Amino acid sequence: MSKNFKDLFEKLSQVEKKKVSVAVAQDSEVLLAVKAAKERGIADSILVGDEDKIKEIADEIGMNLSDYEIVDVKDPIEAARQAVKLVSEGKADMYMKGLIDTKDFLRSVLDKEVGLRTGRALSHVCVFEVEGVDHLLFVTDVAFVPYPTLEEKANIIRNTVEICNACGIDNPKVAPLAAVEVVNPKMPETVEAYELTQMNERGEITGCIVDGPLSLDLATCPEAAEHKGATGRKIVGDADILLCPDIQAGNILYKAMVHFTRGCNGNLITGTKAPVILTSRSDSFEVKVNSLALGALVADSLKREK
Amino acid sequence: MSKNFKDLFEKLSQVEKKKVSVAVAQDSEVLLAVKAAKERGIADSILVGDEDKIKEIADEIGMNLSDYEIVDVKDPIEAARQAVKLVSEGKADMYMKGLIDTKDFLRSVLDKEVGLRTGRALSHVCVFEVEGVDHLLFVTDVAFVPYPTLEEKANIIRNTVEICNACGIDNPKVAPLAAVEVVNPKMPETVEAYELTQMNERGEITGCIVDGPLSLDLATCPEAAEHKGATGRKIVGDADILLCPDIQAGNILYKAMVHFTRGCNGNLITGTKAPVILTSRSDSFEVKVNSLALGALVADSLKREK
Repeated sequence: MSKNFKDLFEKLSQVEKKKVSVAVAQDSEVLLAVKAAKERGIADSILVGDEDKIKEIADEIGMNLSDYEIVDVKDPIEAARQAVKLVSEGKADMYMKGLIDTKDFLRSVLDKEVGLRTGRALSHVCVFEVEGVDHLLFVTDVAFVPYPTLEEKANIIRNTVEICNACGIDNPKVAPLAAVEVVNPKMPETVEAYELTQMNERGEITGCIVDGPLSLDLATCPEAAEHKGATGRKIVGDADILLCPDIQAGNILYKAMVHFTRGCNGNLITGTKAPVILTSRSDSFEVKVNSLALGALVADSLKREK
Repeated sequence: MSKNFKDLFEKLSQVEKKKVSVAVAQDSEVLLAVKAAKERGIADSILVGDEDKIKEIADEIGMNLSDYEIVDVKDPIEAARQAVKLVSEGKADMYMKGLIDTKDFLRSVLDKEVGLRTGRALSHVCVFEVEGVDHLLFVTDVAFVPYPTLEEKANIIRNTVEICNACGIDNPKVAPLAAVEVVNPKMPETVEAYELTQMNERGEITGCIVDGPLSLDLATCPEAAEHKGATGRKIVGDADILLCPDIQAGNILYKAMVHFTRGCNGNLITGTKAPVILTSRSDSFEVKVNSLALGALVADSLKREK
């Protein structure tokens, strides 16, 4: 069971090296990340994009392209299409965004012919290692699903449980977060949190333990949970998955964790046939490499399932 | 201009010592805090409550009661009534909750005869010093107003600006937070954040600079603001007041800041005639003392206004 990113990298060293297909690879930040991923044994890459520009950037950052497969496609939309096809055809294990609009990138992910659709809707998870918490926190959804309905929340949980499993965390504990830890009919978030708990007990959400509503301290801080005398709860400061009530709360929590805490993180799009890495320009180099590592673990887990 | 709690304590050392009236004072945690407040020159206290029990606890914690005024009232509701009356009559400068239900305590604050009502609705502010941010952050409302309307948000801003002013921060910058920094009609929080900005520009919210919607990183992190190329904005990572869209986002942010970051905080009820300190049992000793310090500064500011 992985407790931090060091554990994840350790786990990764025991699995076969993966391959990432990069859509519109002429992006220095992304190339630096895939270069590091190769050097650290996480993944090789196929760089799909404008070969001239890729070579120019590679020169600038001291990247030897002889070890990389390059597919020369100038048009970004077509490059994404070819890059995602490599993944859906099994020639690469995961898919990463380069210098292309997020909307166009996601359109390629969802392409009916060559994309990575499953029956499930997509969601986003950010995996955090935070000073003061002794295990990884899987925070969702902070970027993708704005105001999830109850069924969408159930789906987000299912998507995230898969990522936990790939990280060696079986039967993760899921805390649907709210401002309080008791159901308050005036706060719909608490009612839905309780409904998710019931769905879990009825076997409609499986492979995890859901217990909500929970405030963030009771979900993540054993001392706070004990102090408030939380008896009869299934989660006592030991939640793995933090399900945010909506994107406002989620994004604000995510930004606070990135900018105000000591630790590190990586993130993935979930609910797809293969891992999808959609880091933003503001994500650090470390976040991009961590996300590639998460992607490689998830890809490995999906291969073993087959 | 105070940048951290050290500055606030420094500022406080230059003003006259204040007096706090404690409702139902037989609470060891609260007595420890008012003892420290006295020793540090922040405030003397009037302890209203069950004198026998107060003496018993004082013995246990090594507190010499000869320096404290005690008003012996066994019944908690009546004790709160008498304690708040001391404040509204000017015999004490601020009001603090002891061993009494929050609801009963607030009822005394709102009592039409002896309470501390102003024309404005109450709100709550938590003042944070956080590692990595070079100034104090006034986070609101994380505990009191569940789903503020636009007008309630304007009121929360006005209440919080007063607290900033008392801390020596003139014309504070106010960031109405959201998941994104552009108005999106599908996200009502962003629309309201923009409306608050317009109200500020029209002079309906004064004494501050409002600029929203803003994501938390653009509001508090100059590097992030520059990285995303936020041109033409009034706030570039230098917000003083973080206005949360609702209590779910607010409380989750607050708990993350308390439990995941290095720093300290104190909190107050605002919108009252005199400062009201309502710390919870889970608040640390340090939070209680910081809150008394904030209360003393606000009380001093209110006195100077008269």
